[in-house]
Amino acid sequence: MRFSTLVKLLQSGDAALQSSERGADPILSGAASLEQAKADQLSFLEKGNALTIQLKNSSVGAILLPDQRDLIDLARERQIAFAVFTNPRLAFAEALDQLYPRRRPPADIHPTAVLDSQAVVGPGTSVGPRVCIGANSRIGAQCILHPGVVIYDDVIIGDHCELHANAVLHPGCRLGDRCVVNSNAVVGSEGFGFVPTAKGWRKMPQTGQVVLEDAVEIGSGTTVDRPSVGETRIGAGTKIDNLVQIGHGVSTGRGCALASQVGIAGGARLGHGVILGGQVGVANRVVVGDRAMASSKSGIHNDIDAGAVVSGFPAIPNRLWLRCATTFSKLPEMAKTLRELKRETPQ
Amino acid sequence: MRFSTLVKLLQSGDAALQSSERGADPILSGAASLEQAKADQLSFLEKGNALTIQLKNSSVGAILLPDQRDLIDLARERQIAFAVFTNPRLAFAEALDQLYPRRRPPADIHPTAVLDSQAVVGPGTSVGPRVCIGANSRIGAQCILHPGVVIYDDVIIGDHCELHANAVLHPGCRLGDRCVVNSNAVVGSEGFGFVPTAKGWRKMPQTGQVVLEDAVEIGSGTTVDRPSVGETRIGAGTKIDNLVQIGHGVSTGRGCALASQVGIAGGARLGHGVILGGQVGVANRVVVGDRAMASSKSGIHNDIDAGAVVSGFPAIPNRLWLRCATTFSKLPEMAKTLRELKRETPQ
Amino acid sequence: MRFSTLVKLLQSGDAALQSSERGADPILSGAASLEQAKADQLSFLEKGNALTIQLKNSSVGAILLPDQRDLIDLARERQIAFAVFTNPRLAFAEALDQLYPRRRPPADIHPTAVLDSQAVVGPGTSVGPRVCIGANSRIGAQCILHPGVVIYDDVIIGDHCELHANAVLHPGCRLGDRCVVNSNAVVGSEGFGFVPTAKGWRKMPQTGQVVLEDAVEIGSGTTVDRPSVGETRIGAGTKIDNLVQIGHGVSTGRGCALASQVGIAGGARLGHGVILGGQVGVANRVVVGDRAMASSKSGIHNDIDAGAVVSGFPAIPNRLWLRCATTFSKLPEMAKTLRELKRETPQ
Repeated sequence: MRFSTLVKLLQSGDAALQSSERGADPILSGAASLEQAKADQLSFLEKGNALTIQLKNSSVGAILLPDQRDLIDLARERQIAFAVFTNPRLAFAEALDQLYPRRRPPADIHPTAVLDSQAVVGPGTSVGPRVCIGANSRIGAQCILHPGVVIYDDVIIGDHCELHANAVLHPGCRLGDRCVVNSNAVVGSEGFGFVPTAKGWRKMPQTGQVVLEDAVEIGSGTTVDRPSVGETRIGAGTKIDNLVQIGHGVSTGRGCALASQVGIAGGARLGHGVILGGQVGVANRVVVGDRAMASSKSGIHNDIDAGAVVSGFPAIPNRLWLRCATTFSKLPEMAKTLRELKRETPQ
Repeated sequence: MRFSTLVKLLQSGDAALQSSERGADPILSGAASLEQAKADQLSFLEKGNALTIQLKNSSVGAILLPDQRDLIDLARERQIAFAVFTNPRLAFAEALDQLYPRRRPPADIHPTAVLDSQAVVGPGTSVGPRVCIGANSRIGAQCILHPGVVIYDDVIIGDHCELHANAVLHPGCRLGDRCVVNSNAVVGSEGFGFVPTAKGWRKMPQTGQVVLEDAVEIGSGTTVDRPSVGETRIGAGTKIDNLVQIGHGVSTGRGCALASQVGIAGGARLGHGVILGGQVGVANRVVVGDRAMASSKSGIHNDIDAGAVVSGFPAIPNRLWLRCATTFSKLPEMAKTLRELKRETPQ
Repeated sequence: MRFSTLVKLLQSGDAALQSSERGADPILSGAASLEQAKADQLSFLEKGNALTIQLKNSSVGAILLPDQRDLIDLARERQIAFAVFTNPRLAFAEALDQLYPRRRPPADIHPTAVLDSQAVVGPGTSVGPRVCIGANSRIGAQCILHPGVVIYDDVIIGDHCELHANAVLHPGCRLGDRCVVNSNAVVGSEGFGFVPTAKGWRKMPQTGQVVLEDAVEIGSGTTVDRPSVGETRIGAGTKIDNLVQIGHGVSTGRGCALASQVGIAGGARLGHGVILGGQVGVANRVVVGDRAMASSKSGIHNDIDAGAVVSGFPAIPNRLWLRCATTFSKLPEMAKTLRELKRETPQ
């Protein structure tokens, strides 16, 4: 695709094109990082990236830029085709969709799929090889079910959802529109609830359900449990990375982002726009306020205020933690000083 | 189901019914938390829950109570049907089984299942679509194998086991009766054993096996490795949550409970009734005594005494850790005080 | 197999046989740990194992030993057949391969496998039941694809690879020779990349690919993501345990070993021979030098020098951390001493 054609397509996108210069108008075969890009590839830069030097040395053919004088001048000087956007990262995302159009599997039901006679599949939906769909389950329109997906009974899925290979949806799951469940993820399995008795652990039946609102993404190998009663709910537009555990009865607001290997214990409640770094743990029934953030490996045992940024285990305000962590490495020295002072101080 | 019918059914259970008043004897359609329960729903309260206020405001139709005067009086006053149990949580578990009877898949072998000619399947067992069973593997009676389960060769499974969708059992696994393996769990895969050589890592063959004793549950996405020789053994009645790693050669006693994302390194030995919180790590060959507990995110590097409660990384006694963690957040302040004292102390 | 036969086979191995005494030349039925070995079983000891006592009490039939006088004398005295190797652990690995020969599934394509008409499968490769292979994917020679494996489009796999049950390879994956992907692992799924916009998170398309060089092993349930552009690369001979997360755009050198539940965030770069303990986290774009090691649960936020050994969160040099961790448990005491000193010091 010619660079000029791409720019024309991006004009109607959300990234706000400001201007462009096509230079030699290269034919783009794909995209790459600025460091590795070749003459037939597209790349991008963001404000404050301080990568002027990279642009100087890059062999890139065309670039999406922020409205930053030095970068524009440099691109012009080096005769690199460029386009200026208010949000060049978003423009790059939109460009990738154009340069790498996704192949859609055929909109039919593969003969090796096993559908219950009471399962319903919407128009335009692709049901891949070896998919199983249980009784009373309903799949919306324009969905893609990749090979090996297993849908138990009584599941309802909206339109334009994509379920990757070998993902499993347990009874009672509700998915909105445009949800993505990645490979080997398990949604709606039984929560870890047991009653201690004289005879040992007795299972608390998990009769609730998991609700994924619109545009939720569930990472590969991630598990989302259903509760004993009520529901586990993931808010619209929330994105969950790989190998995350969402305990039974958890709820999240809209637009959260949970990085890989996060674990949220039963009954915790996350507000809107919460961002959790990798390997963060949230304890039972904790409430995390809107737009709160926790850096990776934090252990959140107590409620967190809206907008707070926390770190560490147990989690404390990020700025305080940074200072504490620095001091931690001086502990042996501090202990020594303390011993000396004690010796020298008259009792 | 009428409340009075339910109470009659619970009479023969293990929760020890003491008394009941049927009130208007509502027809129950299901159960819910006290906060969300409606007039046709059942809920429960436990001693010390201090939820009298919730009961005051609840629209619940019927409730299972502990033998606590104020709660009983309040239920009576509000004309809520109630029953008093020594263990209302256990009663609730038993009630859920009555209110939400589980649908059992047909006790046959689905035509799309692939069974080795030397595989044996017991009476009453349901083998779902696309299940694979390898040579010399034997499945007991009354089991349920959900779609996509893969059983390698030489696996032996007891009676009344349930294997959820896409779970995998590797060669040599031994499962007792009433075991549950949740979706996408992997039991019996090769332990992570390699010999360092001049040519790089050389695999140590993992020829041992995994034994799950009776009533063990393995969470979704959890992995249990087999050892190079001997066995990995999970004691009877032990419950393991999602995304847990059990290394090769680990053994646990009876009735342990391991929360999500716990990792137990090779050769560690857990006693009976050990409880580990989420994301806890146990190092190689560590021995954890009976009934020991570790709070979430603990890192256990050294042996733990029976009955001990530990926290932190490295794990120390829980009470000490709580005080240390509080002091940790005062470290910058302490360092400052220390500097001042040093300056003021005559050398 | 007779012990003398086994020793003869090991002669041509890499473990450097020095001498042997066949004793009664037992017929070996298998192998076990020294503690549990019986008269028809093989075991081994390493230098410095300090297990002379175990050998004294063992019922083992034959043993592989290091060149250590006291052990040799003891074996001779107890009439235990033995062989002396420079590397007895490696000899034991080779012995296990002899004592437990692996059953190879038939080198054909199971009739229930679903292969795209444009998929290519090499000679001697076994494609198990219910395997799916997408368009333009090419599998090399002598591979084993266990039941339920899903290979998307445009995947290229070398020779002698083994893919375990229900593993998933996403579009564009490149596997070298002799790779192993364990059960339910997911290689090449979309990286966790989203652009924040006024409308919420917008997916950054992940158009890159994952490359596993020769002899890479990927653990059960492990996830390796592909990047938006470029590649995620795992160096030759690198071994990755279960439930590990490899973020998009990560690269590792040759011969690394990553223990279970490690998480490597996007764009991090590991050198050759890096060893990470269980549950270690590595932050975005961090560079870890050759042969660096991090003990379990470390959180690596900053670049690590080649050969460094680090611990803790944030990770600091291991020796320093050990002292800091010891001092940590004395914090309450230190705080008390500090308060007392302050009181006693004239202001």
